[in-house]
Amino acid sequence: MRVRRVVEVVGIGAGDPGQITVEAVDALRRADVVFFLDKAGQARELSDLRQVILDTHVPGGGYRVARVEDPPRRRDGDGYVEAVADWRARRVELCAELIAEHLGPTETGAFLVWGDPALYDSIIAVVEGVLAGGADFEVRVRPGISSLSALAARHRITFNQIAGAVQITTGRRLADGWPEGVDDVLVMLDAHNTFLEHLDEPGATIHWGAYVGTADEILIAGPLVAVAEQIVASRQRARDAKGWIMDSYLLRRSAGGV
Amino acid sequence: MRVRRVVEVVGIGAGDPGQITVEAVDALRRADVVFFLDKAGQARELSDLRQVILDTHVPGGGYRVARVEDPPRRRDGDGYVEAVADWRARRVELCAELIAEHLGPTETGAFLVWGDPALYDSIIAVVEGVLAGGADFEVRVRPGISSLSALAARHRITFNQIAGAVQITTGRRLADGWPEGVDDVLVMLDAHNTFLEHLDEPGATIHWGAYVGTADEILIAGPLVAVAEQIVASRQRARDAKGWIMDSYLLRRSAGGV
Ligand SMILES: C[S@@+](CC[C@H](N)C(=O)[O-])C[C@H]1O[C@@H](n2cnc3c(N)ncnc32)[C@H](O)[C@@H]1O
Ligand SMILES: C[S@@+](CC[C@H](N)C(=O)[O-])C[C@H]1O[C@@H](n2cnc3c(N)ncnc32)[C@H](O)[C@@H]1O
Repeated sequence: MRVRRVVEVVGIGAGDPGQITVEAVDALRRADVVFFLDKAGQARELSDLRQVILDTHVPGGGYRVARVEDPPRRRDGDGYVEAVADWRARRVELCAELIAEHLGPTETGAFLVWGDPALYDSIIAVVEGVLAGGADFEVRVRPGISSLSALAARHRITFNQIAGAVQITTGRRLADGWPEGVDDVLVMLDAHNTFLEHLDEPGATIHWGAYVGTADEILIAGPLVAVAEQIVASRQRARDAKGWIMDSYLLRRSAGGV
Repeated sequence: MRVRRVVEVVGIGAGDPGQITVEAVDALRRADVVFFLDKAGQARELSDLRQVILDTHVPGGGYRVARVEDPPRRRDGDGYVEAVADWRARRVELCAELIAEHLGPTETGAFLVWGDPALYDSIIAVVEGVLAGGADFEVRVRPGISSLSALAARHRITFNQIAGAVQITTGRRLADGWPEGVDDVLVMLDAHNTFLEHLDEPGATIHWGAYVGTADEILIAGPLVAVAEQIVASRQRARDAKGWIMDSYLLRRSAGGV
């Protein structure tokens, strides 16, 4: 049997070092090399949080580290989707080089992915792109606890109401209106307090969390009209103090007669 | 400081014993008593799978077991939502008795929840109901890897397309038509091959999985029109052979110009 190179895509949870799976820990411990994809200008603290998770579970170290900086996203020209697609193509090239250079013939390399690799993350697509370009390695994906699952657990709520549907979406999309056909909306990547545009939704509640699972965790929940300003203020304060924020929320309206 | 009783609601993943978090394992190891809520007539194998996960991580045992059988759901009379609500109320009573009877004054009890407690599961609501009824204990929820995250990882796909929204729904709801406003739909609790009603959706693909993470795992993916019959046949065969099935899928159509 030929031994192949292995690339592990490892979900590491969204901040709490205890919220990583046993198989993900095993994968990290087996890794000969850990790949860090750093976003240009990324908050130093986010890299630190990632490192804490790694140090907690692989205290002996023993892996090599290979770092690459994400290409910047073009802000001009085409639309958002095109810009992201173009950015992904350049990431594929960079990661192909990274793997070719740093992963030995029988070695295992691990990409650390924040939360769950299935949610608003491009590593899986990037790695598939590298494979499509002709590289030869085996890929394994380890699911992770998403920031949404972590948020729900902290608030002790479920995503769905009885037998109901749920939409996962972005702040950008939520700005277009309350999503059709659902009473429960999980929102990520919202830089603009978009929940404020839904204050008139009858009986809406919000369960919000920032830095969930970390020492800086903030949780606020209640009727949307009652707590919206508190969330806006809390977000602003946290962002001013730390220089960055990661937060998400569940917007819920009563399912009524459905 | 008064030591309180603790009830842990522990997501144990959807079948793969490696897909449980480190904090969930710790919670199980600390538990004095493990509560099993068995569904009346539930497949024996599902209880066995749950026991395998527990035995893998708490090999020494040492916990007591308290079992209760779920009240049967009424199939007659009111609508689905009412039936579920009524069933939940009876579960609250049963669980209140269970906890009162089996959880000592300074003890920790754990409810094992399949997958992630946030997704189509009633334990959180039941435990909150017990608290609302006046019981005194602390509740902690440990998020779990949902069957959807496990499915996506095995297929090496993401839930969302670039910057897109995703709906999580049930087979029952999918029967009403393709959900509004999304190109990606994650379907659980579908007893009727409801994907067959969307064969005419242009360019639709499906990523399907049964018993994901277990020894019996089956995965099928491809253009919906090309693989739908294969999935129907495979589902039928598996169900005939084992007497039960648990499966879920991602339906995706091209986001087109969105
Ligand atoms: C690019 S997405 C990646 C999501 C990640 N794959 C996951 O499963 O959570 C980043 C967004 O996730 C959310 N997020 C990530 N970590 C978070 C945390 N610890 N607390 C709250 N929100 C978080 C925020 O909405 C942030 O804008
Ligand atoms: C009552 S819901 C519970 C979901 C669970 N809380 C979770 O997070 O996956 C049961 C449904 O989950 C899905 N499911 C659970 N385990 C699965 C598995 N191992 N493979 C595929 N689907 C699974 C099936 O759609 C099943 O009908």
